[in-house]
Amino acid sequence: MESGNAESGWYDGEFGSRRGRVSGVMSAGILEAVPNFSEGRDLRVVGAIVDAIRGAGAEVLDWSADPDHNRSVVTMVGSPATVARAALAGARVAIERIDLRGHEGVHPRIGALDVLPFVPLAGLGMEEARAVARQVGRALAEELGVPVYFYAEASDPPGRRLSELRRGGFEGLAASWPHDRMPDLLPESWTHPGAHPTAGVTCVGARPLLLAWNVLVAGITPTEARGIAASIRELGGGFPGLRALALELPRKNALQISMNLEDIQAVSPFEVFRRIEAEVLALGGSVVETEVIGMVPDGLVFPAAADRLRLAGEASGRLLSRRLVEYLAADGARGERDA
Amino acid sequence: MESGNAESGWYDGEFGSRRGRVSGVMSAGILEAVPNFSEGRDLRVVGAIVDAIRGAGAEVLDWSADPDHNRSVVTMVGSPATVARAALAGARVAIERIDLRGHEGVHPRIGALDVLPFVPLAGLGMEEARAVARQVGRALAEELGVPVYFYAEASDPPGRRLSELRRGGFEGLAASWPHDRMPDLLPESWTHPGAHPTAGVTCVGARPLLLAWNVLVAGITPTEARGIAASIRELGGGFPGLRALALELPRKNALQISMNLEDIQAVSPFEVFRRIEAEVLALGGSVVETEVIGMVPDGLVFPAAADRLRLAGEASGRLLSRRLVEYLAADGARGERDA
Repeated sequence: MESGNAESGWYDGEFGSRRGRVSGVMSAGILEAVPNFSEGRDLRVVGAIVDAIRGAGAEVLDWSADPDHNRSVVTMVGSPATVARAALAGARVAIERIDLRGHEGVHPRIGALDVLPFVPLAGLGMEEARAVARQVGRALAEELGVPVYFYAEASDPPGRRLSELRRGGFEGLAASWPHDRMPDLLPESWTHPGAHPTAGVTCVGARPLLLAWNVLVAGITPTEARGIAASIRELGGGFPGLRALALELPRKNALQISMNLEDIQAVSPFEVFRRIEAEVLALGGSVVETEVIGMVPDGLVFPAAADRLRLAGEASGRLLSRRLVEYLAADGARGERDA
Repeated sequence: MESGNAESGWYDGEFGSRRGRVSGVMSAGILEAVPNFSEGRDLRVVGAIVDAIRGAGAEVLDWSADPDHNRSVVTMVGSPATVARAALAGARVAIERIDLRGHEGVHPRIGALDVLPFVPLAGLGMEEARAVARQVGRALAEELGVPVYFYAEASDPPGRRLSELRRGGFEGLAASWPHDRMPDLLPESWTHPGAHPTAGVTCVGARPLLLAWNVLVAGITPTEARGIAASIRELGGGFPGLRALALELPRKNALQISMNLEDIQAVSPFEVFRRIEAEVLALGGSVVETEVIGMVPDGLVFPAAADRLRLAGEASGRLLSRRLVEYLAADGARGERDA
């Protein structure tokens, strides 16, 4: 499990590819950021972070806090400049109020603001998301005094993985930097031997939409749950782009298959769900619930609804809200509506 | 069953009520029109209609043709002026190429362009939809030579129902006008005793989003299907705002519960589906498929997906595309993104 960040969608990069680039009033485009903070129990802290993000002008689509993961995830959108400013505003609160020395949770982490991915959502491309990531990374180091790793499309070369950066967790970076993991950016006059003593290191990235989700199961053993996770994940020969861990949640007295799916266009998340469901049922257990962190993507909802309703025809392109977003984000629509 | 037009959504009037009215570049707003044409078999005619609508600048979100109903439905969006122009362009082709004297189908109809509802979608209200309906109605009579009835929010007083206007079908209006159904608008120098001899009468309306859908069932008798339809419809004491008919589809050798749900905020369409499913199963039959005419609303898809996936929490507000539409349609967002 590399990241608890979570949103997703129906395309891999930008809206409106049917019609080409957006122009005019839309030229700024819509950027999404999904910062993950290492606090999921004290809602006053999480609330202060969300308030700071909203105060900086970003639209907060969703936020959630998970006490077992001891982690919170905020999904925000706005112009690139606004999202950059809002991400820094949230980071400032997190760095002030989260102390990793006392932090425990089942989710791997190395920073108070643990990961900060930027996602091109409409009217802009990955290059612009990458540029914002690099700019915000510099501000995190220079203005907020926290070392930075770049990952995914923001690393140089692109493709660095969070799992690699987070191996050993915060504790493994507190006393010194591993040789293969020197920070990409270090604050000036850095006197610590390793990471920031309370705020750790922040991983700043740029990437397409992904789906972070958990399937809660019951009636099987932890070993069986780990077996299912191992069989469905990419590394075990399962679904491409799927990372999966089986976690025990003492608070809920249940088992969780915790997953990230990197490309929901290549692999249907509903097919993943069906596979888990089939394996759990075959073992005599049951699926208790599905939890989506952040925004719920059409790519998960639509096939599940089509299955439940036995929807006729090729209905996936007829989800009204999706088509309206495409319409609103397309320059053709702008021109038409100004007429 | 009063109308095969079909689209729907998650609110009853306009987007962005969370934030108030839209201003600036969005002030034109997005209007939807869902014309229903009495041709569902000759796809050359349907294609020519769709081409004319597109050619006039509207965005065609969806179109479909049903050979059993012998009817086609186009869902278009755009600025009020563009949608008005496009609706007339489609009407012109329909009036030229559809001859109701040879028309047969299981769906009630009185016009080549049978119904033409306008729906305020984003950034405008029912008053503006009503104004467009009245204006397009005048053009239908004066420029295209077809008598017009106004219905729903466009009638005076508002609330006239399609079922009332379509009683007896085209055939009942060809020779003379019933006393209680004189047309609201008649072309100048009208020499016919009743409706237009080939194009009939067009019903022009304004209304909120609705859901038009069919559930195909098997393994029960036509009488049982009629019993289910009677028990779920509003008139039978069932769901408020639901109209339902049981139709026999010889082409598919199946039975269809054909429905319009007027307010999917008041009544969950998934609950209607569940009720049908339960009654059909109790009779030893099965649900074969669900067909949505026009765009598929979140209000149907989301609860069905939540049921299938056992989605945790209050996830209905977290459908990404829906939230993006709200964001894009809100003036708050405009101000933010222009900054």
